Amino acid sequence: MKKLFAEFFGTYWLVFGGCGSAIFAAGYPGLGIGFAGVALAFGLTVLAMAYAVGHISGGHFNPAVSFGLWAGGKFPVKDLVPYIIAQCVGAVAAAGTLYTIASGKAGFVIDSAKAGAFASNGYGPFSPDGYSLQSAFIAEFVLTLFFVLIILGATDKFANSNFCGIVIGLTLTVIHLISIPITNTSVNPARSLSQAIFAGSDQLAQVWLFWVAPILGAILGGFIYKNLLQNHAEAKNNPQTLD
Amino acid sequence: MKKLFAEFFGTYWLVFGGCGSAIFAAGYPGLGIGFAGVALAFGLTVLAMAYAVGHISGGHFNPAVSFGLWAGGKFPVKDLVPYIIAQCVGAVAAAGTLYTIASGKAGFVIDSAKAGAFASNGYGPFSPDGYSLQSAFIAEFVLTLFFVLIILGATDKFANSNFCGIVIGLTLTVIHLISIPITNTSVNPARSLSQAIFAGSDQLAQVWLFWVAPILGAILGGFIYKNLLQNHAEAKNNPQTLD
Amino acid sequence: MKKLFAEFFGTYWLVFGGCGSAIFAAGYPGLGIGFAGVALAFGLTVLAMAYAVGHISGGHFNPAVSFGLWAGGKFPVKDLVPYIIAQCVGAVAAAGTLYTIASGKAGFVIDSAKAGAFASNGYGPFSPDGYSLQSAFIAEFVLTLFFVLIILGATDKFANSNFCGIVIGLTLTVIHLISIPITNTSVNPARSLSQAIFAGSDQLAQVWLFWVAPILGAILGGFIYKNLLQNHAEAKNNPQTLD
Amino acid sequence: MKKLFAEFFGTYWLVFGGCGSAIFAAGYPGLGIGFAGVALAFGLTVLAMAYAVGHISGGHFNPAVSFGLWAGGKFPVKDLVPYIIAQCVGAVAAAGTLYTIASGKAGFVIDSAKAGAFASNGYGPFSPDGYSLQSAFIAEFVLTLFFVLIILGATDKFANSNFCGIVIGLTLTVIHLISIPITNTSVNPARSLSQAIFAGSDQLAQVWLFWVAPILGAILGGFIYKNLLQNHAEAKNNPQTLD
Repeated sequence: MKKLFAEFFGTYWLVFGGCGSAIFAAGYPGLGIGFAGVALAFGLTVLAMAYAVGHISGGHFNPAVSFGLWAGGKFPVKDLVPYIIAQCVGAVAAAGTLYTIASGKAGFVIDSAKAGAFASNGYGPFSPDGYSLQSAFIAEFVLTLFFVLIILGATDKFANSNFCGIVIGLTLTVIHLISIPITNTSVNPARSLSQAIFAGSDQLAQVWLFWVAPILGAILGGFIYKNLLQNHAEAKNNPQTLD
Repeated sequence: MKKLFAEFFGTYWLVFGGCGSAIFAAGYPGLGIGFAGVALAFGLTVLAMAYAVGHISGGHFNPAVSFGLWAGGKFPVKDLVPYIIAQCVGAVAAAGTLYTIASGKAGFVIDSAKAGAFASNGYGPFSPDGYSLQSAFIAEFVLTLFFVLIILGATDKFANSNFCGIVIGLTLTVIHLISIPITNTSVNPARSLSQAIFAGSDQLAQVWLFWVAPILGAILGGFIYKNLLQNHAEAKNNPQTLD
Repeated sequence: MKKLFAEFFGTYWLVFGGCGSAIFAAGYPGLGIGFAGVALAFGLTVLAMAYAVGHISGGHFNPAVSFGLWAGGKFPVKDLVPYIIAQCVGAVAAAGTLYTIASGKAGFVIDSAKAGAFASNGYGPFSPDGYSLQSAFIAEFVLTLFFVLIILGATDKFANSNFCGIVIGLTLTVIHLISIPITNTSVNPARSLSQAIFAGSDQLAQVWLFWVAPILGAILGGFIYKNLLQNHAEAKNNPQTLD
Repeated sequence: MKKLFAEFFGTYWLVFGGCGSAIFAAGYPGLGIGFAGVALAFGLTVLAMAYAVGHISGGHFNPAVSFGLWAGGKFPVKDLVPYIIAQCVGAVAAAGTLYTIASGKAGFVIDSAKAGAFASNGYGPFSPDGYSLQSAFIAEFVLTLFFVLIILGATDKFANSNFCGIVIGLTLTVIHLISIPITNTSVNPARSLSQAIFAGSDQLAQVWLFWVAPILGAILGGFIYKNLLQNHAEAKNNPQTLD
């Protein structure tokens, strides 16, 4: 049960920090944090929660990551559904809190016709810079593939896994630095679902892509790491160096 | 006594660096650091002082954090008042130094009618982007709750606590990336008090919120960590990995 | 063979993340990540892959680094050609994926007459800020020299090499913070080749500089570290560790 | 002798990266890195060199730091002059390289009447935002005081000194985030000297402040740490935690 609380609070923080910085601070006139600030916020929420509750639940905070670790042989299939439920509940709770805070500004309204409304993900007319469904699918697929490959590598028994929270968090930052203009960046089905609920029915109708592409990419990433990169021997005594 | 000096110097640096970057550098025409630079400055002051004097005092630099660690069972109640006094004295000393330096620019004046004057916190007419008292309260409450939850998680005996200074500092950065437009971001009563003294009587009249909301959030964060997340068993020999 | 896969995936991610952030996100109106965001993306791809696959291949992802480590006595000459082939194949594969995604935006076209088209490197008329061939050569030479000197220092048996992934990644960030206006920053022949293939024949005709200058700088960096800085004694028993 | 080479190369990189990013990239139209990018570049050069050559020379790269460590009882007085010479030679060599590269852009000229010309430091008419001599002196004094206090704390035998390179580098970033508008940020006499030589005689006439204020601040910082904060007992077996 502690594991599911950890996934709940971790995913809440990911959505509250990442989507919150996008909603409140990205476009503030003259002083706003822009896409780079949002990318940093997403990454640092995961960096923090990986160290704060990773020792409890493993620190997924993302249904695609749970699938990818399962594909990589690091997560039991029986925990998939409970983890994903805890992640989605945490994400939606965070989105609701963001909505409540945002409503306290005079004139607040969600413009559902606009790409990226309430930090929602989208393609075609709902892509921030007008990228097609195909481009959106490839981007989400490739980015989640590498996200899982890096997670499995950084937590490998031959790797220096003390640093894995830094590596995983800052990789989520890179992912956002690349792809906010393409899809507003998902790689996380729970995050996409939570914002679409508040953004509008058009956004909800596009959520399927942000479940299918990240989960397929994650599974392939797990498969690649396990079969092409992982050393299945016993771990050495000493952590790796470049020597 | 060394503990109180450590809290004094740590909180001085937090306010000097965080509020100083806001006052001197955020809005410099064309090249200014913006809200993202200020968020980074706040976080990196705490990151540094956590490693520099954390071994002396535990590295709170924030009355709400002291309350939260008390609620989480990690800080004795008898030290609360001395710590909070040292933190407030350090914060006010830093604000005074900032005032002295700022006065050396021709035409310097604090415009007390403006939101965020002299890096002060506020709500309603003193919120940088016009958020209501209720929104400000929820934001400060939730952000401090998670701040304390992450501090307790990252310093847990089952966690890889070597990294806690990085985690805690960069979480303060996330907090600022989200909420500067809402309240100019407090989560720290000492920081709020110090700037309000120089900003004006209207700002001082709003300081209550930046004591009440962060301290209540911190106490709930400590309570949640202790009761829902913490493993009260003996620590394992090895630090956690994702394996 | 795992080593070559590691270099393939690592260099793919470097180019996908670094050049991708430049192509998709640097110049987005009002919210774009600018040169600083691109610098961060390049650095964080290497930081991540150093921890994720560094334990497999050593984590070069760059033909100049392979030459530099050979000059520094840390890499066998027989592995040079296979590593460089894996790096170039990975870089070109990433560039092809970027091209496919970019093509999904209406009106996409590569303007080969423009400096920095498709994140290509260049000098003279193809330098983003109009720097001469000589300036470009010196910059690429000096930057790669220090890149290799820092890599060898941070992985020295007397150094705290647990942190080397952070050090190396963030040094690539510094390198980009300095020199994007000069050459669009290479210090990596594979990265330069991959983008020039798509950018146009003028860019391809300038690729020679981004092989010659970085490789010569890297070799001198390896030579300097080995002869002026390295301590050739046996390592102390207790290098500092996180334990 | 290796120690002096380490200080030479370390200070070269600090000036090349920090001042170079300011000269080439800060003000690039629309995409420039601004003061925040320059702050990051300065910090990351020191972070990198602390891990790369810190095990050789201790990693000062700054005459004020050498004075401060001497005042804190951590550096022998006999090494002060050789270290400072190596630092100044490295800084001036970097400035010369920057000048050579900068000269390769058509129309390059140093406008000596302008504050911050060629990344020089200054006060009064040569302060980027017009701060007085007194403000500049206080800022440089206080910032260097805390820089040395944090260096001594982060390398204390009771601290988790593995992280000291990260702490020290990112503290230099904070220092720049605060004070570029005030003095263009020195806290490093060698860095100030090197740029003033190329910037002009007015800048050279102001260099005294950037030797006197940082060195006095550094000495007081060393004195405060040693007498008010340092625990002079034997080190515990275990590194610190927040518990």
